[in-house]
Amino acid sequence: MRIHWLFAALLVPGMSMAAEGMWTLDNLPKAKMQAEYGFTPSDAWIKRTMLGSARIAGGCSASFVSKDGLVMTNHHCASECLDQMSTAKKNLIKDGFLAKNREQELSCPEIELNRLEQITDVTAEVKNATAGLDGAAFKSAQNAIKAKLTSACVGKDKETVRCDLVDLYHGGQYQVYKYHRFQDTRLVWAPEKAAAFFGGDPDNFNFPRYDLDITMLRAYEDGKPAKIDNYFPFSKNGAEDGEMVFVTGQPGSTQRQLTVSQLTTMRDLTLVNTLIRLSELRGVLEQYSKSSPEAARNAGQMLFGVENGYKALRGRLSALQDPVLMQQKQDDETALRKFVAQTPALQAKVGGAWDAIAASQQAYREMEAPYGMIEGGRGFSSKYFSYARDLVRGAEERAKPDGERLPEYADAKLPEVEQELFSTAPIYPDFEKVTLSLSLTKMREMLGTDDAFVKQVLGKQSPDQLSAALIDNTKLGDPAVRKALWQGGKQAILKSDDPFIKMELALDPAARAIRSRYEKEVDSVQQKNSELIAQARFAQQGTSAYPDATFTLRLSYGEVKGWKEGDKQIPPFTTIGGAFARDTGADPFALPASWHAAKNKLNLAQRYNLVSTNDIIGGNSGSPMINRNGEIVGLIFDGNIHSLGGAFWYDSRFNRSVAVHSGAILETLKNVYGGDALAKEILAH
Amino acid sequence: MRIHWLFAALLVPGMSMAAEGMWTLDNLPKAKMQAEYGFTPSDAWIKRTMLGSARIAGGCSASFVSKDGLVMTNHHCASECLDQMSTAKKNLIKDGFLAKNREQELSCPEIELNRLEQITDVTAEVKNATAGLDGAAFKSAQNAIKAKLTSACVGKDKETVRCDLVDLYHGGQYQVYKYHRFQDTRLVWAPEKAAAFFGGDPDNFNFPRYDLDITMLRAYEDGKPAKIDNYFPFSKNGAEDGEMVFVTGQPGSTQRQLTVSQLTTMRDLTLVNTLIRLSELRGVLEQYSKSSPEAARNAGQMLFGVENGYKALRGRLSALQDPVLMQQKQDDETALRKFVAQTPALQAKVGGAWDAIAASQQAYREMEAPYGMIEGGRGFSSKYFSYARDLVRGAEERAKPDGERLPEYADAKLPEVEQELFSTAPIYPDFEKVTLSLSLTKMREMLGTDDAFVKQVLGKQSPDQLSAALIDNTKLGDPAVRKALWQGGKQAILKSDDPFIKMELALDPAARAIRSRYEKEVDSVQQKNSELIAQARFAQQGTSAYPDATFTLRLSYGEVKGWKEGDKQIPPFTTIGGAFARDTGADPFALPASWHAAKNKLNLAQRYNLVSTNDIIGGNSGSPMINRNGEIVGLIFDGNIHSLGGAFWYDSRFNRSVAVHSGAILETLKNVYGGDALAKEILAH
Repeated sequence: MRIHWLFAALLVPGMSMAAEGMWTLDNLPKAKMQAEYGFTPSDAWIKRTMLGSARIAGGCSASFVSKDGLVMTNHHCASECLDQMSTAKKNLIKDGFLAKNREQELSCPEIELNRLEQITDVTAEVKNATAGLDGAAFKSAQNAIKAKLTSACVGKDKETVRCDLVDLYHGGQYQVYKYHRFQDTRLVWAPEKAAAFFGGDPDNFNFPRYDLDITMLRAYEDGKPAKIDNYFPFSKNGAEDGEMVFVTGQPGSTQRQLTVSQLTTMRDLTLVNTLIRLSELRGVLEQYSKSSPEAARNAGQMLFGVENGYKALRGRLSALQDPVLMQQKQDDETALRKFVAQTPALQAKVGGAWDAIAASQQAYREMEAPYGMIEGGRGFSSKYFSYARDLVRGAEERAKPDGERLPEYADAKLPEVEQELFSTAPIYPDFEKVTLSLSLTKMREMLGTDDAFVKQVLGKQSPDQLSAALIDNTKLGDPAVRKALWQGGKQAILKSDDPFIKMELALDPAARAIRSRYEKEVDSVQQKNSELIAQARFAQQGTSAYPDATFTLRLSYGEVKGWKEGDKQIPPFTTIGGAFARDTGADPFALPASWHAAKNKLNLAQRYNLVSTNDIIGGNSGSPMINRNGEIVGLIFDGNIHSLGGAFWYDSRFNRSVAVHSGAILETLKNVYGGDALAKEILAH
Repeated sequence: MRIHWLFAALLVPGMSMAAEGMWTLDNLPKAKMQAEYGFTPSDAWIKRTMLGSARIAGGCSASFVSKDGLVMTNHHCASECLDQMSTAKKNLIKDGFLAKNREQELSCPEIELNRLEQITDVTAEVKNATAGLDGAAFKSAQNAIKAKLTSACVGKDKETVRCDLVDLYHGGQYQVYKYHRFQDTRLVWAPEKAAAFFGGDPDNFNFPRYDLDITMLRAYEDGKPAKIDNYFPFSKNGAEDGEMVFVTGQPGSTQRQLTVSQLTTMRDLTLVNTLIRLSELRGVLEQYSKSSPEAARNAGQMLFGVENGYKALRGRLSALQDPVLMQQKQDDETALRKFVAQTPALQAKVGGAWDAIAASQQAYREMEAPYGMIEGGRGFSSKYFSYARDLVRGAEERAKPDGERLPEYADAKLPEVEQELFSTAPIYPDFEKVTLSLSLTKMREMLGTDDAFVKQVLGKQSPDQLSAALIDNTKLGDPAVRKALWQGGKQAILKSDDPFIKMELALDPAARAIRSRYEKEVDSVQQKNSELIAQARFAQQGTSAYPDATFTLRLSYGEVKGWKEGDKQIPPFTTIGGAFARDTGADPFALPASWHAAKNKLNLAQRYNLVSTNDIIGGNSGSPMINRNGEIVGLIFDGNIHSLGGAFWYDSRFNRSVAVHSGAILETLKNVYGGDALAKEILAH
């Protein structure tokens, strides 16, 4: 409730909105930056920042920190790799990892790095392609132009070039982002989880904080460390209180420009259902984890994701339940509609957009359960099922021309699909049974025992029985089997007697049907009408506003700064000594043995974590925090509890990003982990 | 979403509200009953109905069905007793139970039966006692008058007389309900859970339905079957489609007369938080249950309660998320406030009540987490903790005069407290560790790691460590230890070195402090101002309306009737043959072996379950459904899915109660369970 109360107090007249904004690099608010901080980024500064920044395709940010392809990101962004490279006997999550030399660096089977190299505006092409179309026709035309533009951008260099069509301002602008793609990524250094995630879920999204949430990777090309021209040098001293700092990274998504009907759907339907679903899953995973250390290891990644997601979404729900926020959104919408109504031509074109979107929300409410369960795969939570779907659909889709496929199987997307499918990461059948059975049970609960699809899936079996029957008999855990099925195409799929493949073949028509209905009645209506609203907003405000986050490169500027929590001033820095003071010896508040052993060598006064006013959100994890000189002063890994409402608005009084101090990274790397060679590489400039 | 959609369609102008209402027996709408069904209950009919009805103090309804104290209720109302009388080797929940003779009837350690005998209006006394008071003073005065009135009503017959002060119309009327109390209750017959709860959670709140949700108990007095003059005779044929039927029972609570601000609190805060909490607990219990059959048995009762509660509350949340419902509530409130504003005297007295309640809701939002966790005990989910609290508080409170105690320790309440404390029901330490540790973890999550109370509780221990330390060292699992501590009073408590007693002694001041704050800022404000609103409503409508449910005896009239679900007409009856058709052999859709063995003997065309338009809600479980002649035609055990919105309004088009047909009870009792003697007792009249 503390959150709630604070949100209620957020919108006071005349409040400062400095630091608000996740800006695209081709449209930085230079005049505002100059006026507020006396700093204007040069074109060279912007270009260096763009090329030094990286994206982890799975949903994080990163940066290049040496000429030899060294990449810095968060521990929780690379923990999937740590987990996949662990075994029952060697637990890299628990024990950490340091490669003594390049030969010891471990390949991450599923990490893809992207570096943005070029932005091309294609708004006209996309809008022309869909002009005058509705529903399924709109969607098909959009898929086709997407495939065409991205394929053309990729050209012949599929291995190293990735192109995405990016939708900014909810259809206001379309751009092609061209990336350099690195699929050979290796693990260099990671501390123990007890240090990286000290305080665990209780401290997550909180500050003061004491986390060494870092992992170093290395990008390879042609079997050798990638040669990197643009990387960020490290500042040992970091930034002072009040100093201007920047965060360059990939914020995942914000909902600041949604309509009130969309926000209401999110509040009443999506968030509540998701939180309930995550909570039950969380309980199952917690209890499963207590059954044995190996069970805990197998469920660990998912449990972290569930707890993190739960906390983030709970904060968003609290924000949307605040009547002040909703009134503000309503007032903004009313003002924009009034503006539109003043110009007859604009009114004729755009005036109906809000009601059309509201109608699509009503349609969505009625199909949310079957759509999520059947097409969204929520009823079949298992890696085996994901593999089966990719294999079955991939075979069918790849037989079609590029522009007519489901967009996730367009040519430009296949390298990512193949990286997942051919991954050598382990899979744990017992654990898969737990998640699959639970999700089948939930599907039966949400759709009803007598639902035709549920009956088709379960027949006379219980969820436990069906899960066991599928998982005990599938061969899809073997990457070689998956590769053969992928390469064998439709014929191989039709001949397969794997139970997951057979099930997915039988169920896919129903899944495609509900997807089509969703695309026709919800998705295309939202997209088409959001484009219209974006036009109205441009007419009202110009492009001086920043677009909602889209997991593409953005720059946020702000400053190192604490905040006032009730009567209490929260200082912007913690120290390494503070971590020792908070140590209880009981997980998650137990520092690892390595820290206790090194305590005497450590500078306990070294600044450890810090907060700044930068406007960030999930996806920014792993972003470098840099100063005016483009030097790394911190590593973003979280936001404070007030930042959770940042999905909908930004308040510079309370919203803070949380980072590891660059000096603490160097201090612990050298004095706890014995990473002198690595420290030397980072500091070489 | 199906629910949601139906609610959105609920309020159409001119819709019939026939059958709406949970009427007190001293204020039946006789004229309406006569007009709609040509039936007026006589005073004798009403008195017989009152005396034939019973309440299970833990939260269910029941009825007397023989002159020798035989009591009919639901299996899920008596399953606590079945569970408590089970062991790892003899599982009465799974296998069912039939006493061959009276000697075999098993004592239920915690079931108290109440039979209403007298209603006395005390509105004037209660209102005089609190006149002109506010906050803590209001609350103290109300506690004192409650204790005085109920103690006077009980007199010297504490063993057999129970008196409760009942608040009707949210403070519109206060009445003393005088009950005959039966604390010696024994188990006579229960079918297997597979028959009683066929379809399990998936079919819960659904219809068509196939459940034999019945248990027969017997009330004893002085070691002999109680002699009962007024009991309900059984009708083998039941009631026909369209026939008028009555439900007499104890609906727990409805929220039809709450203010909009109270409903909003329920929607945004209480229900969402409860659903999230229940969902995580559900996941933990599900997974714990899979660890062994004994674990499943130990967790079974709680898991059933959690799943049932989850589904009921989810339905309520969906109802409150419906904009049509909320608008209707807002319109009703606006109309009442307008009515009040028309009379200056009324306006002066009542006009501020809604805003005062709204302010109390804001106060509640800010204290909901600490109040629920600390005083509500949600942070300490364990039977041991409940015992410790009763022992510690009971010792302190009993030393005070009756009128100055916390009301749950007033003289009139002590027999119930003692029945619980001295119960010989088993307690499972391993399972207690699971629930206690989870609740401590949630307390840390909700209040924060750095909260002073959390630090006081946990110190440097983790929730797992603390739970184990407490439970491994407590003696409170032994009823003799509890009895000695209770009888030893404050001195024994202060001398005890039991870790739960010591913890509760240390924490109780903080719990009492947050309770006082809650009573002052929330509870007393709501009570006082609800009384004012009730006055306004009486002035507007008279007492022709029924009061919100209060877990006291109510009569609902209606008729046997199916409903239309979309395009589909749902018939009002199912048959025993239908249960066999739905049997898949896999839990929860597997009929027990006894049914398969008896199939040839059974009349498969016998009507099994039925629906009627009676307006009921949770607490009505176990209510008899009777016809005009006062004969039992069914046993209420559920409502359909649309009945879940019944907390806030009633719609005769969709809202249905679900019952076991009286003929099916007799058919299975004789032909599946060999209960001929019992059938004979029921039919003797």
